[in-house]
Amino acid sequence: MRQSHLFTKTRKEAPTDEVAKNAQLLIRGGFIHKEMAGVYSYLPLGLRTLNKIETIIREEMDAIGGQEIKMATLHPSEKWKQTGGWDNVDVLFKLKSRTEKEYALGQSEEEIVTPIAQEYATSYKDLPVSVYQIGQKYRDELRAKSGIMRGREFGMKDMYSFHESQEDFDRFFSITKEAYLRIFRRAGLDAKVTEASGGSFSEKLSYEFMVITDAGEDDIVYCPSCIHCANTEVAKAEAGGECPKCKKGTLAKARAAEVGNVFDLGVKYPKAFSFTYKDKDGKEQTPIVGCYGIGTTRLMGTIVEVFADEKGIVWPESVAPFNIHLILISSVEGTAKAAADALYEKFRMAGVEVLYDERDLRAGEKFADADLIGIPLRVIVSEKTLKEGKLEVKNRKTGEVQMLTETELLKTVSATLSV
Amino acid sequence: MRQSHLFTKTRKEAPTDEVAKNAQLLIRGGFIHKEMAGVYSYLPLGLRTLNKIETIIREEMDAIGGQEIKMATLHPSEKWKQTGGWDNVDVLFKLKSRTEKEYALGQSEEEIVTPIAQEYATSYKDLPVSVYQIGQKYRDELRAKSGIMRGREFGMKDMYSFHESQEDFDRFFSITKEAYLRIFRRAGLDAKVTEASGGSFSEKLSYEFMVITDAGEDDIVYCPSCIHCANTEVAKAEAGGECPKCKKGTLAKARAAEVGNVFDLGVKYPKAFSFTYKDKDGKEQTPIVGCYGIGTTRLMGTIVEVFADEKGIVWPESVAPFNIHLILISSVEGTAKAAADALYEKFRMAGVEVLYDERDLRAGEKFADADLIGIPLRVIVSEKTLKEGKLEVKNRKTGEVQMLTETELLKTVSATLSV
Repeated sequence: MRQSHLFTKTRKEAPTDEVAKNAQLLIRGGFIHKEMAGVYSYLPLGLRTLNKIETIIREEMDAIGGQEIKMATLHPSEKWKQTGGWDNVDVLFKLKSRTEKEYALGQSEEEIVTPIAQEYATSYKDLPVSVYQIGQKYRDELRAKSGIMRGREFGMKDMYSFHESQEDFDRFFSITKEAYLRIFRRAGLDAKVTEASGGSFSEKLSYEFMVITDAGEDDIVYCPSCIHCANTEVAKAEAGGECPKCKKGTLAKARAAEVGNVFDLGVKYPKAFSFTYKDKDGKEQTPIVGCYGIGTTRLMGTIVEVFADEKGIVWPESVAPFNIHLILISSVEGTAKAAADALYEKFRMAGVEVLYDERDLRAGEKFADADLIGIPLRVIVSEKTLKEGKLEVKNRKTGEVQMLTETELLKTVSATLSV
Repeated sequence: MRQSHLFTKTRKEAPTDEVAKNAQLLIRGGFIHKEMAGVYSYLPLGLRTLNKIETIIREEMDAIGGQEIKMATLHPSEKWKQTGGWDNVDVLFKLKSRTEKEYALGQSEEEIVTPIAQEYATSYKDLPVSVYQIGQKYRDELRAKSGIMRGREFGMKDMYSFHESQEDFDRFFSITKEAYLRIFRRAGLDAKVTEASGGSFSEKLSYEFMVITDAGEDDIVYCPSCIHCANTEVAKAEAGGECPKCKKGTLAKARAAEVGNVFDLGVKYPKAFSFTYKDKDGKEQTPIVGCYGIGTTRLMGTIVEVFADEKGIVWPESVAPFNIHLILISSVEGTAKAAADALYEKFRMAGVEVLYDERDLRAGEKFADADLIGIPLRVIVSEKTLKEGKLEVKNRKTGEVQMLTETELLKTVSATLSV
């Protein structure tokens, strides 16, 4: 994309009412637009990154047999009254139609997905089944000061699975856990699996996926030597003590953001809707339900928080809005412009996503914009580099600068993209 | 996809409270699930079709320079009060937070997009700009009996453009009109451009894109000999009279569904937000705004209404959930099963989307399901066809049956897909 066509621009200052680093940087970079506390619109750069995050999640959910659907977000109140959520879920947004019919906005979709599964899963032969969606959620949060990490409207992947037995649920949970860890790894993050309390959803244990960052809202105790990790709310050992798992490491404490979770919901929701299936002997049984969430917008915010430096955002390759930021240093029509135009076309033909800064601005401004926007590779074309037959290629994360021929650059890029 | 893995099943009967043919068939086929009047969830087959419709629209909007964004759907009331919409738009859903803050649900996004454009379009150099999104909309409809053709929650592509002059707006409108006609053609529909009144959005004329179907909610007068078409609300000539445009055809009347529209919004919204830009002479000017809608879910419903026959849905190739419905007639492990399995893998490798019905059901049931679901090509593998070295290939739309070798079939399919 030619940057002169991109309708957004960077801003020098963050809005004064925005205290979260992720939102400050994303607003300054033109990725998002704040509508009110906890509600943001996603502009072209932001939507590109969000789409990449969603694609990673979709691939991994499909790979474990999840079937994608798209559930309504405007819910009839009856279903929420049937499960008790209407009076018990404090973040539930409620509204009325002109004719006084009551609705809820989806803050989670158990009330919708359970009757859907009920319609089709009538026999043990129909189980297990797992369905998921990626879409908007609404929560009436009292405070929303964490940028896109805690929204009143936000993006979420929510999957629900239905099983014949606790064993089958446990089997599927461990498959999902591995898929979740793959998702976070692919998004560049090191996520820890923690035990936590089930919250308002369930009396059973739940598992959270935590990424260490000061922007998080949770405290964890973890072992640097093994995978042990627990939310301090339920941790049995304290920081400074010996790891109860490996008996080697010394437990450390950290602030962390919850980027995903899984709840064993038991039979609560099927019971509320009288959802049973016929088992092998023709007897009616109640399925066991699991729910699995990943906040897509929160994940995006977490990535910003974890990798940003003093100059701006640093995107991992996998979720960057573009692979390459191609910068032309020369406002006049000439050799450099022709070379940059040609390189832009070559990249496009090769399927490389390029943001091409051909704007008539000073080099310093362009570099500052590139640092703020955070695309992994910055390629500079100028009369000077051309004279040397080389391009200046800078890695946004490491700051490493290489002088490469066009052939070398194309090779480097395809190697990075095929990883 | 293996049909035994698909969690939905077909139903023989439509729900008794559903009077619209599109919803009856889509529910019976397992494409959608009704949550309440005017609100549906999209199941795997329905989501696949909706995604294909969205992809066609996205490609055509990108091709005319539209920049995709994703705006918030939970709107602060202040913006709606600023434009007067808070008190004047009767379909606006309103709600309150726990702390008594007032919100609206997006029924259109002028209140959100105008301040976004205002932030970035400060000079004539930044114009024109056109942005669009594809997402959920909410309207407090008094009646919602048209299935997915009129929803309280529904899918919509809405584009907004900002211009320096009426001439530039007119230029962009005519480009958009052509893009719209391409979209409808690609979706298999013959859409007519009609003049209509601007409704509550604008005092200026608007244009609607109409598809003839008894399921529509509008009446049009059109000329069978040329492109003349008008909504009867504003038509200057009546059915039976001479066409005012070509002076040859005799005007006919028909029921039609509005699948798209374009409004010249003038300067109403920029005025409400004091949005001006600097012109070439440094003078503050107010931009002219256009808005362009296509109901994605309504388009899907219209396609069902227009093409369905007494046996079920008939999808045009471009929006079908799968390209081929591969049906194995043989419940036992044997030659037919092995051949069908192998063919399924071959199709998958070739990038052909196949729904593979390997379920242990009677042939008649499988055929009825295939007719209801409406995938364009049905391919039957049975011991009988294998003996003849042929596959039975049936065109869902024409009913034509051909006996083809595997090579002939693969050739036919790639020819269809590359169109």
